[in-house]
Amino acid sequence: MTVLFSVLDDIRARLDAMPAPDAAARAGAEERNGQLTKPPGSLGRLEDLAIWYAGWRGTDRPVIENPQIVVFAGNHGVTARGVSAFPAEVTAQMVGNFEAGGAAINQLARAFGAEMSVTALELDRPTADFTEGPAMSEADCAGAFAAGWNAVSEEADVVIAGEMGIGNTTAAAALAAGLFGGTGADWAGRGTGVDEAGLARKAEVIDAGLAFHSGALSDPLEVLRRLGGRELAAMAGAIASARAQRIPVILDGFIASAAAAVLHRAAPGALDHVVAGHLSAEGAHGRLLEQLGKEPLLDLGLRLGEGSGAAVALGILKAAVACHSGMATFAEAGVSGG
Amino acid sequence: MTVLFSVLDDIRARLDAMPAPDAAARAGAEERNGQLTKPPGSLGRLEDLAIWYAGWRGTDRPVIENPQIVVFAGNHGVTARGVSAFPAEVTAQMVGNFEAGGAAINQLARAFGAEMSVTALELDRPTADFTEGPAMSEADCAGAFAAGWNAVSEEADVVIAGEMGIGNTTAAAALAAGLFGGTGADWAGRGTGVDEAGLARKAEVIDAGLAFHSGALSDPLEVLRRLGGRELAAMAGAIASARAQRIPVILDGFIASAAAAVLHRAAPGALDHVVAGHLSAEGAHGRLLEQLGKEPLLDLGLRLGEGSGAAVALGILKAAVACHSGMATFAEAGVSGG
Repeated sequence: MTVLFSVLDDIRARLDAMPAPDAAARAGAEERNGQLTKPPGSLGRLEDLAIWYAGWRGTDRPVIENPQIVVFAGNHGVTARGVSAFPAEVTAQMVGNFEAGGAAINQLARAFGAEMSVTALELDRPTADFTEGPAMSEADCAGAFAAGWNAVSEEADVVIAGEMGIGNTTAAAALAAGLFGGTGADWAGRGTGVDEAGLARKAEVIDAGLAFHSGALSDPLEVLRRLGGRELAAMAGAIASARAQRIPVILDGFIASAAAAVLHRAAPGALDHVVAGHLSAEGAHGRLLEQLGKEPLLDLGLRLGEGSGAAVALGILKAAVACHSGMATFAEAGVSGG
Repeated sequence: MTVLFSVLDDIRARLDAMPAPDAAARAGAEERNGQLTKPPGSLGRLEDLAIWYAGWRGTDRPVIENPQIVVFAGNHGVTARGVSAFPAEVTAQMVGNFEAGGAAINQLARAFGAEMSVTALELDRPTADFTEGPAMSEADCAGAFAAGWNAVSEEADVVIAGEMGIGNTTAAAALAAGLFGGTGADWAGRGTGVDEAGLARKAEVIDAGLAFHSGALSDPLEVLRRLGGRELAAMAGAIASARAQRIPVILDGFIASAAAAVLHRAAPGALDHVVAGHLSAEGAHGRLLEQLGKEPLLDLGLRLGEGSGAAVALGILKAAVACHSGMATFAEAGVSGG
């Protein structure tokens, strides 16, 4: 069912009505976990993951059959300020690459049996330069959130939100600073690979944005509208939509985490259905995950975006659920010690 | 082709004739990696993995289609000394569970598309208690090594060696101490879950073994024969066999690493075709990986054995190779910046 959002209050209304996990399913999964043919606790974090997943899916013996990766692309007015190592036209070129199946995320989706789609969000109409005004109008921001919300299939049993957007590590860093405080230097990183001068420029641009909007940063959704971008709003929408449908989410890197942070700041517990897929090499990702209270599953030095780190972590979640739901119990296998 | 080993010198002869990776294939893979549609280095360790894998497989664009998991089970005379939380009959019961498809490793093999086999190594004839004599005769040790060697299929394109054996964290810790020095307390861990008293007992048993064999620990294969066990010898055999066929190996946890350490000490570079799958929660695994010069891919608190941690890491290697060989180049995709 397609949902319309035209103002930020439409988003707020959805965040006020988030479902909780199924306590009985979670308890049943905990009990089952204790009976499986392995020493107690010996599957480590895989056990916690499976129990968490079972609670959200409402069954003590869940399966993962329909992972969904939704990638959103957006362009950023702030690229005019020289914050990226790549030209802005690469965003549209990479959308073509996603559609043709040639990007990293296409290979990862195939490797882990996930459906993948890409949504290009008005690439020929970049967001405004946030050092001179809000990145988006309220209708733009709500519309991008809706695009993310509606991209999540009700058939999905795990969701990954990814992104592509030249300039969007700058927007994400500005968003993080707007939500959690700190300066541009605290949150800016090298993105696709800027040099020292580029990094300093990013920090300055973020500081300029923070200064321009300083009187309007108390509301997280307003921070998203002023400093974020369409693909960031869409990722937040997809993560919120998954929550509304009790579909667990694997969080990608720095940009996805900044988008998720909007929900975290807007509504307590809004990310309880979310696990952090990986720690990105983008400088401030670790600090951002600390703010979200999330421990990453992987730390492999990835900093590509597209949902790629979360997609690699999908293998871990699939492994956890496969063990939990497929293993024999001590009684079934006739093994001593259960 | 089935290979026979009857004495330890048969093993030595194989270790003296190990192949190197294909330098041209590796260089070709490095060049290809630089052309793929992503910022340079943005896939982090996945890039290193794919290039390493390409070198061993002898092609700049490899695929993974036939992962093989070989699990070996053995029993240990040293269990009579109360070193495990589970009774020795669990080894045979778990072999039944592997054969029936009910263990964790069965689910992981299915999840990641791997062939899996289990080889029970004379379970009704445990190794001798190493505090009173060598665990194995030379023929026993060479025979177990041969069983591992011959279990590796020439069709495999990646190999994982796993194990099951009540008491084998004690044998593995004794092996590590025999190879690298240190005391029982340095290398003993909780295994399947022994309490404080059990842990102290393990350390004492290991120290007794080290004292008994102190004059005969300069030769790594002799350390394996005296302090190891059949499944440890078989894992070493499987890892060496994979090397002989240029098949990369993903290393599992503490016990697999102790088996691999025999090769590392016996022949420089013997583990160049091996990547560490995970850091086990078994206490001394980190120290053992440091000795091997290996950085683990995962750190999820697993301590089950069976090859389980390596099997989860198989997803990462598959992801790395899928990206490397499947992605479009900048030129192919018409993306700027290549």
